Amino acid sequence: MKRVMERVQTLRWNGKQIELIDQRLLPFRTEYVACDSAKSVAGAIRDMVVRGAPAIGVAAAYGIALEARRLAGTMPSVFAERLNEGFNILAASRPTAVNLFWALDRMRKLWLSHPDKSLKELSGILLQEAHAILDEDIGINRKMGQYGATLLPDGAKVLTHCNAGALATAGHGTALGVFRSAIEAGKRLSVFADETRPFLQGARLTAWELLQENIPVTLITDNMSGYLMSRGEIDAVVVGTDRVAANGDVANKIGTYMVAVLAKRHNIPFYVACPLSTIDLSLATGSDIPIEERPANEVKGFRDCHWAPEGVAIRNPAFDVTPAELVTALVTEKGIVTNDTLMKGGLSGFVKNGRQ
Amino acid sequence: MKRVMERVQTLRWNGKQIELIDQRLLPFRTEYVACDSAKSVAGAIRDMVVRGAPAIGVAAAYGIALEARRLAGTMPSVFAERLNEGFNILAASRPTAVNLFWALDRMRKLWLSHPDKSLKELSGILLQEAHAILDEDIGINRKMGQYGATLLPDGAKVLTHCNAGALATAGHGTALGVFRSAIEAGKRLSVFADETRPFLQGARLTAWELLQENIPVTLITDNMSGYLMSRGEIDAVVVGTDRVAANGDVANKIGTYMVAVLAKRHNIPFYVACPLSTIDLSLATGSDIPIEERPANEVKGFRDCHWAPEGVAIRNPAFDVTPAELVTALVTEKGIVTNDTLMKGGLSGFVKNGRQ
Repeated sequence: MKRVMERVQTLRWNGKQIELIDQRLLPFRTEYVACDSAKSVAGAIRDMVVRGAPAIGVAAAYGIALEARRLAGTMPSVFAERLNEGFNILAASRPTAVNLFWALDRMRKLWLSHPDKSLKELSGILLQEAHAILDEDIGINRKMGQYGATLLPDGAKVLTHCNAGALATAGHGTALGVFRSAIEAGKRLSVFADETRPFLQGARLTAWELLQENIPVTLITDNMSGYLMSRGEIDAVVVGTDRVAANGDVANKIGTYMVAVLAKRHNIPFYVACPLSTIDLSLATGSDIPIEERPANEVKGFRDCHWAPEGVAIRNPAFDVTPAELVTALVTEKGIVTNDTLMKGGLSGFVKNGRQ
Repeated sequence: MKRVMERVQTLRWNGKQIELIDQRLLPFRTEYVACDSAKSVAGAIRDMVVRGAPAIGVAAAYGIALEARRLAGTMPSVFAERLNEGFNILAASRPTAVNLFWALDRMRKLWLSHPDKSLKELSGILLQEAHAILDEDIGINRKMGQYGATLLPDGAKVLTHCNAGALATAGHGTALGVFRSAIEAGKRLSVFADETRPFLQGARLTAWELLQENIPVTLITDNMSGYLMSRGEIDAVVVGTDRVAANGDVANKIGTYMVAVLAKRHNIPFYVACPLSTIDLSLATGSDIPIEERPANEVKGFRDCHWAPEGVAIRNPAFDVTPAELVTALVTEKGIVTNDTLMKGGLSGFVKNGRQ
């Protein structure tokens, strides 16, 4: 088995700060933004220095750990109040990806389970937990990748939307992790990447990430996949997700729903790579998932390059919901959930057994 | 009835040249490119100074008229040879829109029907024909608009893709002509415009054209219409077309097919504004329509603004085919062709009666 070497480190700990690769500048500049507080991490999430549901979760865990370190010299009552503020500011950074809230929950439970520790000890424990979440994320992605790889035939032409790669996670990636694992298992793949307007994660991040590893990748605009499907040029779709409801409805980057509808029409399997931390059993269906509307500016052009006329109204929903009926299978680190299972009763049984 | 005033003149005759509004520079610069030969018009078509199936047809007619004027002082045998070259160079400028070939056919038939005329007289006749094609185009669009307007309820939220407006025609537009006529008939409309990557005709041309006339327009990226449809925010889709096959299959700007599939899923009517000159009865189905692949550069960014990494492979099909089954109705200048009619035997009966 050849191991695909990742050349990308999305989040790295430098001994006192978390450094985030600045995804706004890729693919032409590789720079890191160092964060040392909950506020700075929240700003990086909001401004999309870091993006991708799992990567946001890992970053938020470090945001709490860093805040605890910053506050370790204060009075316990001040510490509690300020750390709570840190949780709040991180929770308000972006609304759709549930991994953010999952990671904050995990950090809060750990904090509250150590009332006897000194603040210095506690901040050490929280930092170890952030490290653990990062390491686990890579392990989970590798397990998902192994399950997902079994779904792809040798020689498959696969489509992905947005970036669910190493850059969206601590490493390996979710959807792109499936591709990496399939290649490690000796399969040949070629990838079509939707450019993914308005933020162009597909063009800037997915294409770049795959090129780093010499994985064949062809860039298309978001309106081309239907044409390619109609010509038999796509064998499978694999995407990531920002939140999955209990019934299996999938929130993901805007445009995913259109791809899923077209895949269904052409009998092309539509797979969603989904760590268990992305499943939100508290929401019955996808219609309960909050959909972020981002600033109009993103749609008017890209960076300093504007092409829309002055004064035009804009909509900019950042995510959409793909109903479970269109999902051929969810790929998790505990195995594959088929459409049959989703249709028969959703995810709660699987998650309870899977999470144990 | 209030008359929507068009502020846009796509093609204008200045007494010796045809001037084309440079659609590559819109919406920020309004400049005209003057053409005085078949070659210069063909270059303007190829480079997308002028685009939109009906506008290309009108431009090509002027290309022939201008070439005939240029050659009117030569020997008849030289004239015939060089004018034929003009036909060839124009025919090779872009492959998908059939109006180009329709206009060239019409000019050639007129030429061949006047073997007795002097070259000077002939070139005058050809110029009058180009003027007639331009004038007819506006008249046809107004008739289509009146038929199409009956299909849209007052207060409708309508979606269009690419630019099938005044800028795609000699004036009034095809799809946008339907909107203009509905508004002239007293209906309130609000328009969603797909930005239409990679050339951004929706963002740059449709949004700008509608803003000139204070028609409410909201710009979205191409991957957002499915989400809006799923939320009940779109009542009808109206698009133009570059070529319609005998069975009613519709070639139009890349992405149209995805919109049509989503509209069908959500029971939203999908209308195609289609002058008879866009119907190609010589092709049985849409799979016979040649689909242009344009340069990779267009997908890598926009103008000087590039965001794709070096070395990535690109696909750039400029059109796709929407099967007739997804077309709720074709709107022509001779009336509306329903899906029932298309399914029962295609367009040949209608066209033969309509064209008379």
